Amino acid sequence: MKLYDLELSGNCYKVRLFAALCGIELELEPVDFVNQAHKHSPVIDYNPWGELPVLVDGDVVLRDSQAILVYLARKYGGHQWWPDDAAKQGEVMQWLCTSANEIQHGPCAARLIEKFDYPLDKESALATSERVLGLLDQHLLSHQWLALGRPTIADCSVFPYVATAGEGGVDLTSYGQVNEWLKRVKNLPGFIPMPGI
Amino acid sequence: MKLYDLELSGNCYKVRLFAALCGIELELEPVDFVNQAHKHSPVIDYNPWGELPVLVDGDVVLRDSQAILVYLARKYGGHQWWPDDAAKQGEVMQWLCTSANEIQHGPCAARLIEKFDYPLDKESALATSERVLGLLDQHLLSHQWLALGRPTIADCSVFPYVATAGEGGVDLTSYGQVNEWLKRVKNLPGFIPMPGI
Repeated sequence: MKLYDLELSGNCYKVRLFAALCGIELELEPVDFVNQAHKHSPVIDYNPWGELPVLVDGDVVLRDSQAILVYLARKYGGHQWWPDDAAKQGEVMQWLCTSANEIQHGPCAARLIEKFDYPLDKESALATSERVLGLLDQHLLSHQWLALGRPTIADCSVFPYVATAGEGGVDLTSYGQVNEWLKRVKNLPGFIPMPGI
Repeated sequence: MKLYDLELSGNCYKVRLFAALCGIELELEPVDFVNQAHKHSPVIDYNPWGELPVLVDGDVVLRDSQAILVYLARKYGGHQWWPDDAAKQGEVMQWLCTSANEIQHGPCAARLIEKFDYPLDKESALATSERVLGLLDQHLLSHQWLALGRPTIADCSVFPYVATAGEGGVDLTSYGQVNEWLKRVKNLPGFIPMPGI
């Protein structure tokens, strides 16, 4: 099973992190992002969106880090990470979509601007970060984990760009509950970091 | 089962649409959005994010339209709409996250600016719209439906803000495959429209 990967991408890292926590073996294929290898064959043939990560597992080819997490958890990870039950799937899904929406357009965007000169709106990225971090902190006041009272793919999905928020100029100091949760994730057996964490 | 609903919201409509296609009965509770009822009790108690839709089904309370689609499909809709298999879940998930990310920040944002005076970046919304519609059109060249070769919650999730893109000043004329797909969705048994469609 091959992951087309970029070490500095939090979206790639969330897949590597989940695989490490679950003991899933991934063959990492580093993509030369600077030279736009993801916009050329073979990566673009697997993913016309020209984005990373891309997972290739036999006949299965998937783009989008959340979709990859669901696939890996369903196939190899077991129900503790991605449940079978309707209400529990819904509970985890809320956070996978928070990751695709507010986390991507908040702390992730701020980091892309600050660290990689992406032409995105910094003010909007900081406002979205502040909103989502406030809601996350409030949620974590009464929850140890994002969903189901235990670590799930929801935590793997939201963690990377919150843990690296400082690289985008987002100050986490005032989000006490978020900081405690970050520590809990870092203490999970099998945890691996990425640069900046 | 109660849906806290706003008629003009495409995110609420995607839940109404899926329920109609599946024959799921929803009790619609219209929320007085103009007077910010979603920022006050009881809606804010169910959803601290202060957003619509919110689904309440007995003990189950869910925010986020994609999470609600997964819950309803898993519980009441059957595997044709949201599959059980890992690879198939991954395939559908790709489009649920496209909906939470590029559709939300593309055609949905453009419509919010144009129709409801939201203080968002129009240029960015139009650029995101163009990109996602181009990729969608390319995908639909060789696919009748977004995933699995049949209608799924992926189509219900992406349809509303593509079908209403014109209200945000996004011109769909040149996306021939997208237009054909919109027609296919509209021809599904049980289809219901929303204002603007």
